[in-house]
Amino acid sequence: MPAYRAPLDEIRFVLHELLGVEQALAETGAFPGLDRALLDQVLQEAGRLAGEVVRPINRDADEEGCRLENGRVTTPAGVREAYRAWVAGGWSGLTAEAADGGQGLPEVVAFAVNEMVTAASMGFADYVGLFAMVYRMVKRHGAAEQQQRYLAGLADGRFGGTMMMTEPHCGTDVGLIKTRGVPADDGSWRVHGTKIFISGGDHDLTGNIVHLVLARAEGDPAGSRGLSLFLVPKLLPDGSRNALAAVSLEHKMGYAASATCQMALDGATGWLVGEQKRGLMVLFDMMNAARLMVASQGLATADAAWQIAAPYAAERLQGRSPRGPAYPDRPADPILCHPDVRRMLLATRSFVEAARATYLWLGLEVDLAERHPDAVRRAEAAEWLSLLTAAVKAVLSDLGSAATNDCLQVLGGHGYIRANGVEQLWRDGRIAMIQEGANGMLALDLIRRQIPAHEGRAWRRLLAAMAESAKEAAAPELGTAMQAALIRLKTASDWLQARIAQDAAEAGAAGVDFQRLFGLTLLGWQWLRLTEASARATAAGRVGAAFHAEKLASARFWFARVLPLAEGHWAAMQAGAAPLMEPGEDYFAAG
Amino acid sequence: MPAYRAPLDEIRFVLHELLGVEQALAETGAFPGLDRALLDQVLQEAGRLAGEVVRPINRDADEEGCRLENGRVTTPAGVREAYRAWVAGGWSGLTAEAADGGQGLPEVVAFAVNEMVTAASMGFADYVGLFAMVYRMVKRHGAAEQQQRYLAGLADGRFGGTMMMTEPHCGTDVGLIKTRGVPADDGSWRVHGTKIFISGGDHDLTGNIVHLVLARAEGDPAGSRGLSLFLVPKLLPDGSRNALAAVSLEHKMGYAASATCQMALDGATGWLVGEQKRGLMVLFDMMNAARLMVASQGLATADAAWQIAAPYAAERLQGRSPRGPAYPDRPADPILCHPDVRRMLLATRSFVEAARATYLWLGLEVDLAERHPDAVRRAEAAEWLSLLTAAVKAVLSDLGSAATNDCLQVLGGHGYIRANGVEQLWRDGRIAMIQEGANGMLALDLIRRQIPAHEGRAWRRLLAAMAESAKEAAAPELGTAMQAALIRLKTASDWLQARIAQDAAEAGAAGVDFQRLFGLTLLGWQWLRLTEASARATAAGRVGAAFHAEKLASARFWFARVLPLAEGHWAAMQAGAAPLMEPGEDYFAAG
Repeated sequence: MPAYRAPLDEIRFVLHELLGVEQALAETGAFPGLDRALLDQVLQEAGRLAGEVVRPINRDADEEGCRLENGRVTTPAGVREAYRAWVAGGWSGLTAEAADGGQGLPEVVAFAVNEMVTAASMGFADYVGLFAMVYRMVKRHGAAEQQQRYLAGLADGRFGGTMMMTEPHCGTDVGLIKTRGVPADDGSWRVHGTKIFISGGDHDLTGNIVHLVLARAEGDPAGSRGLSLFLVPKLLPDGSRNALAAVSLEHKMGYAASATCQMALDGATGWLVGEQKRGLMVLFDMMNAARLMVASQGLATADAAWQIAAPYAAERLQGRSPRGPAYPDRPADPILCHPDVRRMLLATRSFVEAARATYLWLGLEVDLAERHPDAVRRAEAAEWLSLLTAAVKAVLSDLGSAATNDCLQVLGGHGYIRANGVEQLWRDGRIAMIQEGANGMLALDLIRRQIPAHEGRAWRRLLAAMAESAKEAAAPELGTAMQAALIRLKTASDWLQARIAQDAAEAGAAGVDFQRLFGLTLLGWQWLRLTEASARATAAGRVGAAFHAEKLASARFWFARVLPLAEGHWAAMQAGAAPLMEPGEDYFAAG
Repeated sequence: MPAYRAPLDEIRFVLHELLGVEQALAETGAFPGLDRALLDQVLQEAGRLAGEVVRPINRDADEEGCRLENGRVTTPAGVREAYRAWVAGGWSGLTAEAADGGQGLPEVVAFAVNEMVTAASMGFADYVGLFAMVYRMVKRHGAAEQQQRYLAGLADGRFGGTMMMTEPHCGTDVGLIKTRGVPADDGSWRVHGTKIFISGGDHDLTGNIVHLVLARAEGDPAGSRGLSLFLVPKLLPDGSRNALAAVSLEHKMGYAASATCQMALDGATGWLVGEQKRGLMVLFDMMNAARLMVASQGLATADAAWQIAAPYAAERLQGRSPRGPAYPDRPADPILCHPDVRRMLLATRSFVEAARATYLWLGLEVDLAERHPDAVRRAEAAEWLSLLTAAVKAVLSDLGSAATNDCLQVLGGHGYIRANGVEQLWRDGRIAMIQEGANGMLALDLIRRQIPAHEGRAWRRLLAAMAESAKEAAAPELGTAMQAALIRLKTASDWLQARIAQDAAEAGAAGVDFQRLFGLTLLGWQWLRLTEASARATAAGRVGAAFHAEKLASARFWFARVLPLAEGHWAAMQAGAAPLMEPGEDYFAAG
């Protein structure tokens, strides 16, 4: 598989020029001593690790996959090797607090690191991302004793972690969960049930694994409000094996380095995390973190695919430029001369950079929501995250998958064979449209929950911010296009909310079309912000004129060639629910 | 992998009610004794073979793949087994003439059979489709001696066949071909070169393999007009091995049952097919046949995916219908209650049926182009095929891949694991967007060649036929929607042809957006034809009212929810080439 070059310049541009993270983080007072030099050094080191250690194991890990023997999962050799390097470099404790042996760095840095490691190997990144998330959940919601037992091991990489939700009969609809907890005399619980699709349910990377298990305490009511969260370790505090094990491994389309386990809990000992019947609260917190991780999968795989497709297009000679031979001395022109090849590459790059700006922005908001001294700013950050997390997960995974698919197409038959790596990126990235909430379901979160929340306060704030950016656009035609897009977005949203008041089915009927319309507009807004930042940075001499010109080119492409597709989604939405809801069950039983 | 149920009722409806094949074929006088009963019997038998023999081997063949040892390719055991059944049933000679030992059936029947076998196993279907195509090419273009030597073996399944075009440095741009033919004293040629991506380049299904090799006779000019086609058998007439061999196998994303070989021709003995330097003519003929086969891959994989996703959606209980519990006695409603799940399924079925109508129609036109006694009708058929073949290949493979992707999404995580089969359908079907011409390149064929051909005669005929159908629509709102779509199509096409006159880059810049706009409209037209046919058949009592109601439901969905996406493509097109062509080479070297 081709090398991976970490997009350090781009990440730094977003962090410093667009988001001003140094200042924003300094305001929290939570990261003393964290300056730009240190941030940049961490990023550079992460980029090196991603490129030199993680990427080289990616293809073999895909071919080798995971094995389950005698209830123990063996990960691909390369994954074990990369994990040793990860731990040795202190990356497992990147955002863990110093008291737990961590580095105490902000989440936004972990977001950037996660993008690079995910681009290098999505399967590997899944383990370390999950482990860090479980640290975070135990830190935020665990009892003191749980924290004392597990945080240090999670921070220094001795322990892994999982989240266990899905069961054979329920994924999205967690209210159906059958796994149950029975209280024991000593305050612990015995957990019984079967969980499926558990990433890293077992593996050989760490000694212990901290499982966070969604289950129902005996006697608690049916439905999602009767759920509790249990911490169920693989090894009990006395070192003995707990009564849970991986009983099978899924063979998947991709993402093969990540062990996807079916887990049997046979009276496993666990402890409540947070209060009984409040499992859903912790779950939502965990889910939001997980969704932003999944959003990065769409972005990262698309960027990795660009890194293969763009040089291929510059080197592959085939046909002639439609405007006449560009290189008459060569037998043919590079396929980069063909407008449609350019279209696919421009679509990818203009997606990736706007997606990265969105993703890192939300990473910063995570820090601000937790650490900002001003409660108003904390609340604002939390509202941004509520409003956008599910939508961004969906939009970045959808468009990221489409961009990777375009990059595969750029290579033609050479994209379809395994050796060139794009096909693996596509297969791996495809799960992002499904995991942590299927994208179609997430559209309902945006439409039914987030937009109307607090009488539309966060939604109106977003529209106002977009309108503000349109006024300050670095190029007037971009501002004009944004204004038109904004009117369409607002019209579509108002239309939809009015329809839903008449018929609840209208939300799902319009769901994915509205989500896409919203996503295309959201990324358009990011392009206004990015070009405004690059104009500023160029004027101040911090980046060259060519850098700004490239940002403008991407922005123009997005507004001219991608955003107009929203017009089709708006047209499709307006047909409403009837054409979907009218066909009877027989229709779907035929054919 | 789940069972495959051949869509016999749907195929018969298209053949008899929409296309009236019995009458149309009778007019040719070329198929005496061919009546509806015989046709239906052949289809039923093919459906049985596809479901009972071919589908059961599909998953194992994917897992097992092909092996190359000592220059010989071993296919998966199941492929060999299915091939024996194929030959034993006389399917290898389905359309071969009686004089060659064939069944002498029309192409349109082979098209229908091909759809079913492809849906059952795309990898298996590739072999038998290619073999039949090579029979056809030798029959149409081969010298008498070549016909005598190879036709019977191709018809009775003893011989296989390939087409060899692609080389490491050239795919689309065949003018760059380096493989060369050197004349020998006896009228034969010695062919030297390397070919890649050769489907069935070697295998263990047949004793001999008839390779059709595109190469340049020594001394002939560079470029595509210097190319000739050579027949190069694996075994020479004396039974000895010819000087060509498979030297490596590609490991691909899917389509693993099909052996994709790199072939070395080391002075292999061959004979000219057709005239020297007229290789491109034969190639075009072969390519058109191959493209319609590839079009079927998009359609067939989508239908196969529907067959898995629709029952899953009816059975999987998760969440509640937005309009209130549909099955209050069950723990949850089937996911079929969710509008977005319905959207994905309706999109798939409404695509599949319109695609099948298009595909089988073109199959009939192949017969009419060859066999109709009236030269005018023959020419008209040939013009339909010229106009539509490349576009239909592109549209059916693009939309088929998207539909299969939607079906995968319906299953959520269960779609991502191998056991349920949809992921293999997606991986297999993905090659259809690439092989026999990448879809982006095919857009140029439609825009630059076919629409302007003969001062737009065939194009105007198509638009007139669409307008006629709009007038006769089975439901008035469909007619109105079609008229609007037609105006958009004509406006977009005229706009584009005018732009191209100014700048040749505009064709490729608009290419895929126009192709999609065209495809959505073309399939909309098919829905008018299908509903008009089902209205007629219902009125005459030949199909039930429910059948017509389902056709109307699909048609309404297509016009209401799919066709409007064309509005976005039209908007995107209008930005023109500038946003694509302006970024310099540095833009694509960065990031």
